[in-house]
Amino acid sequence: MSAAARKARRERVRQAAREHGVDAVLLTPGPDLRYLTGYDAIPLERLTCLVLPVDDEPVLVVPALEEPAAVASPAADLPVRVWQEADDPVALVAGLLGRPERVAVADQMWAEKLLALQAALPGTDVVAGGLLLAPLRARKDAAEVEALTEAAAAIDEVHAQLGRWLRVGRTERDVAVDVERAILATGHVRVDFVIVASGPNGASPHHAVSDRVLHAGDTVVVDIGGEMPSGYRSDSTRTYALGRPDPQAAEEYAVLQAAQDAAVRAVAPGVPAQQVDAVARGVIEAAGYGELFVHRTGHGIGVQTHEHPYLVAGNSEPLEPGMAFSVEPGIYRPGRHGARIEDIVVVTDSGVARLNHRPRDLVEV
Amino acid sequence: MSAAARKARRERVRQAAREHGVDAVLLTPGPDLRYLTGYDAIPLERLTCLVLPVDDEPVLVVPALEEPAAVASPAADLPVRVWQEADDPVALVAGLLGRPERVAVADQMWAEKLLALQAALPGTDVVAGGLLLAPLRARKDAAEVEALTEAAAAIDEVHAQLGRWLRVGRTERDVAVDVERAILATGHVRVDFVIVASGPNGASPHHAVSDRVLHAGDTVVVDIGGEMPSGYRSDSTRTYALGRPDPQAAEEYAVLQAAQDAAVRAVAPGVPAQQVDAVARGVIEAAGYGELFVHRTGHGIGVQTHEHPYLVAGNSEPLEPGMAFSVEPGIYRPGRHGARIEDIVVVTDSGVARLNHRPRDLVEV
Repeated sequence: MSAAARKARRERVRQAAREHGVDAVLLTPGPDLRYLTGYDAIPLERLTCLVLPVDDEPVLVVPALEEPAAVASPAADLPVRVWQEADDPVALVAGLLGRPERVAVADQMWAEKLLALQAALPGTDVVAGGLLLAPLRARKDAAEVEALTEAAAAIDEVHAQLGRWLRVGRTERDVAVDVERAILATGHVRVDFVIVASGPNGASPHHAVSDRVLHAGDTVVVDIGGEMPSGYRSDSTRTYALGRPDPQAAEEYAVLQAAQDAAVRAVAPGVPAQQVDAVARGVIEAAGYGELFVHRTGHGIGVQTHEHPYLVAGNSEPLEPGMAFSVEPGIYRPGRHGARIEDIVVVTDSGVARLNHRPRDLVEV
Repeated sequence: MSAAARKARRERVRQAAREHGVDAVLLTPGPDLRYLTGYDAIPLERLTCLVLPVDDEPVLVVPALEEPAAVASPAADLPVRVWQEADDPVALVAGLLGRPERVAVADQMWAEKLLALQAALPGTDVVAGGLLLAPLRARKDAAEVEALTEAAAAIDEVHAQLGRWLRVGRTERDVAVDVERAILATGHVRVDFVIVASGPNGASPHHAVSDRVLHAGDTVVVDIGGEMPSGYRSDSTRTYALGRPDPQAAEEYAVLQAAQDAAVRAVAPGVPAQQVDAVARGVIEAAGYGELFVHRTGHGIGVQTHEHPYLVAGNSEPLEPGMAFSVEPGIYRPGRHGARIEDIVVVTDSGVARLNHRPRDLVEV
């Protein structure tokens, strides 16, 4: 992402702020700050805050200790205000704002910071910054799609090696260690999550890893992702079978595969987000497994693993070119097994492009 | 930590809440939730929230998708209220509370959650939960000191291997990869941070890593830490020299070592936190390097790497037995080099115990 692209994003946020009667946007470290400045700051007790007024120059408020990091980051093109260990940074931010009627803050700003800012800005209405930033972040430009494509290729490379690591007698944790190493070796800078859910553990969609030993006949849900140097994330799920799977699991898997495929094909500009969910759910319900699909069909992805748009009943927002999200239906039979297939896709001008390309069959390893 | 210990902690938080006129405490995923329930939940867009009323049973509100994880966690001893994908979890939490006058929220609750709760609880005063939890978390019991001792031993094991990895011609990043692997191999479950700051990069206290190649004569600041299975953290810094260091760097290092030692020896029950800072600073100022020591002397550590108490000018809070924190003065000469020595220490009934034991001399590797 170029400095010019980030500056253009800041201008678009200001424009959105004006439309919503917001006088200034306050961003502490997190995905919004990174999106607008390129600065990958760590959330800490010491306040770092981008102050972005609608009608004045932005200022990056940083603790003295973080100044070298801020200046070495892509945010170096912004004016910086440094505070010392004994200063009051909240008063400094409030002083930069004057008496705003309404400010927007980063969705992930820590409560301790927000409460201090609210106390320092009595009478100011505070709104969640997602109001302004989520619509902008949801629509990826060409460079962002490129970054997500690279992330997807990296995680595909990890899935390509799973067949070697999933072996009867090893534990989920053993496999997870291999996966973590591979996530870093394939170009990611951080492991975001590793789910290796074998046998009955597969029936819990957010099971992480355990010391359960893999058995012959197990199906294993492997849902993994990480962060690339660009800040953009990968996230892909495949389900593996250790030898011949249980016939019931195989039957459910065939339904799941059809559902995931139908849902991906349903993606196009103008389609309401919830319709993609409805298509996946329809296929699974028609086969009689509706109650076993216990979560939404997908989530947006970008500089955060979960962001807008969410593919969930009730979200009638129309899909637009550039939106990137997961399509990941699952079928979970409690106490027995589970399965999920997840690809990241991008809405194109005429339809959809998948970014993950590993085979979607239930691979016997 | 036993279930009984966590229940006792919840009772103490309730007691503190009563004393501060707080009717209920609301904790989203993060260190406070883990401290009170043992549940290591991941902060997500879907709301997970412990509702801890002063005069009623606690309830853990969880999304359906996270229910298996919550029930498999040590929080299984708490009543759970599950919400489905299309439900409004904020309304659910507000409904559990009635019309409280004042609630406390987790210091790290995301702003989007806090703003939604504030909107659902008009007229309720909201305060940062640190008011109640920080004093409790700052005083470690015997099991917590044991957990921090294990964490310190693990990170000491990593430092013991640095001599092999710091080699002329390698980059900071090469060394960081070795360190990350070793942090996981020594029993940590997560890498929290890796600073390998060589030559002039050492002058930036929060420099992480770069592609700078190590040169003969460099001093290298290595500040590393991770999370143990217990949730407790390690954090230790040593400074290494690649062969004979610059005489100026060696002279500054001798002052730093004396300052760190004096600061550790100044720790005892009843001593104001800021006095430890003043002792370290006094030694460094007396040698004429005061302006090169640009940060506070230390921070508390527990289930979070940085927590109360902070050893900083202005914090007159008296140290108490069980408080655990870093003592980590540094001397930073911009454009040239830097050095820092950091041990975690615990206040004992009669004085202080260091938890890190690697040699504190400037080791030539």
